[in-house]
Amino acid sequence: MKKPYFKQNAEDPPPLKGRVTRRIRFEEVDMLTIAWHGHYTSYFEDARVLLGQNYGIGYMDLYAQGILTPIKTVHVDFIRPLKFMDKITIEGILHYSQAAKINSEYIIYNPQGEIAATGFTVQMMLNTDYELYLTQPEFYKNFCDQWRAGKIK
Amino acid sequence: MKKPYFKQNAEDPPPLKGRVTRRIRFEEVDMLTIAWHGHYTSYFEDARVLLGQNYGIGYMDLYAQGILTPIKTVHVDFIRPLKFMDKITIEGILHYSQAAKINSEYIIYNPQGEIAATGFTVQMMLNTDYELYLTQPEFYKNFCDQWRAGKIK
Amino acid sequence: MKKPYFKQNAEDPPPLKGRVTRRIRFEEVDMLTIAWHGHYTSYFEDARVLLGQNYGIGYMDLYAQGILTPIKTVHVDFIRPLKFMDKITIEGILHYSQAAKINSEYIIYNPQGEIAATGFTVQMMLNTDYELYLTQPEFYKNFCDQWRAGKIK
Amino acid sequence: MKKPYFKQNAEDPPPLKGRVTRRIRFEEVDMLTIAWHGHYTSYFEDARVLLGQNYGIGYMDLYAQGILTPIKTVHVDFIRPLKFMDKITIEGILHYSQAAKINSEYIIYNPQGEIAATGFTVQMMLNTDYELYLTQPEFYKNFCDQWRAGKIK
Repeated sequence: MKKPYFKQNAEDPPPLKGRVTRRIRFEEVDMLTIAWHGHYTSYFEDARVLLGQNYGIGYMDLYAQGILTPIKTVHVDFIRPLKFMDKITIEGILHYSQAAKINSEYIIYNPQGEIAATGFTVQMMLNTDYELYLTQPEFYKNFCDQWRAGKIK
Repeated sequence: MKKPYFKQNAEDPPPLKGRVTRRIRFEEVDMLTIAWHGHYTSYFEDARVLLGQNYGIGYMDLYAQGILTPIKTVHVDFIRPLKFMDKITIEGILHYSQAAKINSEYIIYNPQGEIAATGFTVQMMLNTDYELYLTQPEFYKNFCDQWRAGKIK
Repeated sequence: MKKPYFKQNAEDPPPLKGRVTRRIRFEEVDMLTIAWHGHYTSYFEDARVLLGQNYGIGYMDLYAQGILTPIKTVHVDFIRPLKFMDKITIEGILHYSQAAKINSEYIIYNPQGEIAATGFTVQMMLNTDYELYLTQPEFYKNFCDQWRAGKIK
Repeated sequence: MKKPYFKQNAEDPPPLKGRVTRRIRFEEVDMLTIAWHGHYTSYFEDARVLLGQNYGIGYMDLYAQGILTPIKTVHVDFIRPLKFMDKITIEGILHYSQAAKINSEYIIYNPQGEIAATGFTVQMMLNTDYELYLTQPEFYKNFCDQWRAGKIK
């Protein structure tokens, strides 16, 4: 069995999830007639943006609070190829963390509902002087407290 | 014979030219095993950036003077297809204009030296409040005056 | 008034139209916080793919008939900038032609319903030996005949 | 100390290395004025293509032998941001493996020579029926034998 991308502690609230669909574009498909691997970071981003929108912690929400959230790590495991015009479903899974970072997991489903790829990103938090937050900034801590208290699902 | 993209007036100084090379990337090639048409705007940009660098009127040079230069029009005529690993030469040709705009022409040569594509861009000039310059801002006018006087080639 | 991209003859059937929406992605936005001009070819392609799907003359439909349809010309006029998260509407307008080519016009609307960009593409038709069709191949001619007869709208 | 991406066995020949440079393009830079994370897969590919070229095991070389080499895993760790016009150096490091896969590591250096990012890819090998090679196909095995014998450096 595959090792999970993120460790879930017993006391952590369940992850937050969201799904978005997208169609594979002609320009995304390579000479082997499959989606080029580098585009999957964009597929992941669609789900991350959706989660951000749904929970009020999107790029622009955090930016408005003086919090920048650049990607620290991205990882993609490719399982089944995707073809031109495939309508894919991208699931974003936000994992709880007490640290000043955002741990997101992704699952891409092909039109048959099979897993086409999985992966994760880790985002840091910086202030507008590009200094690393060592603990969660207040705005994001409030969000996590609500989440842990079961008020956000 | 093809109509020229820009009209040259008798009193205009000759265009400024520069060439840059680039190799067609795997990710730029589509199912037909040719470079996808949408990437040619990037090829053009390589030549435009080179011209800007060579003549001190690049994006960042103008930005430092409070001049933004967004693209107003882009046009590409595709003549011969480009393949993966093709080393192309992109010629940028800056045409003189008295207006507050930048008129650039492009010629892409394939590895055999044949013309693979031609095209042009027109850039406007805006100040940092995104207001259109109706006449050339001073910094760019000085450049054009030098050019017209034959001091820039 | 702007000159039309394609000349409509009196006896031509009305153009075929279709609209598709799309949200501007983070990766498509540049340092000026506006969508980079090179991505508009992709926006146009979304509408072109939709038209192809709606009328059974998509890339894959034609390919299945041995007809390749590479882009011969692309042209974009930029009118109003687009921002991250903007939900845009892209209208594709297929113009009738008796020639062996596909003339498409595009209008991009911003979230306020204003025109953000317009443009066009011309596609050639090649057989699978990459030879130019000088007259419409039968499959496409049948489509055009139906269109002209008012049976396709 | 960071855990290595690939385990080197005592009897393995030293990795094969190559370096390529590239300038960060305007279109690759986001609203935070840094290169968007998704483009690093393209930076890695430049080094992978170089290694393939230098050692005769490039995408097209293997394809000519009936061997497809899609990406199975890609991983990027971002360390220092990259800016527009930064001339970066991408080092590709091919690690020896007895399995039917290609293990590549990458280090991106910023113009100051500091490490900007690291990462790796794993490629599978498929035949032209898209069936997985469980052991190295002969062409690639010969290359690895030469490498192990110290004849390729």
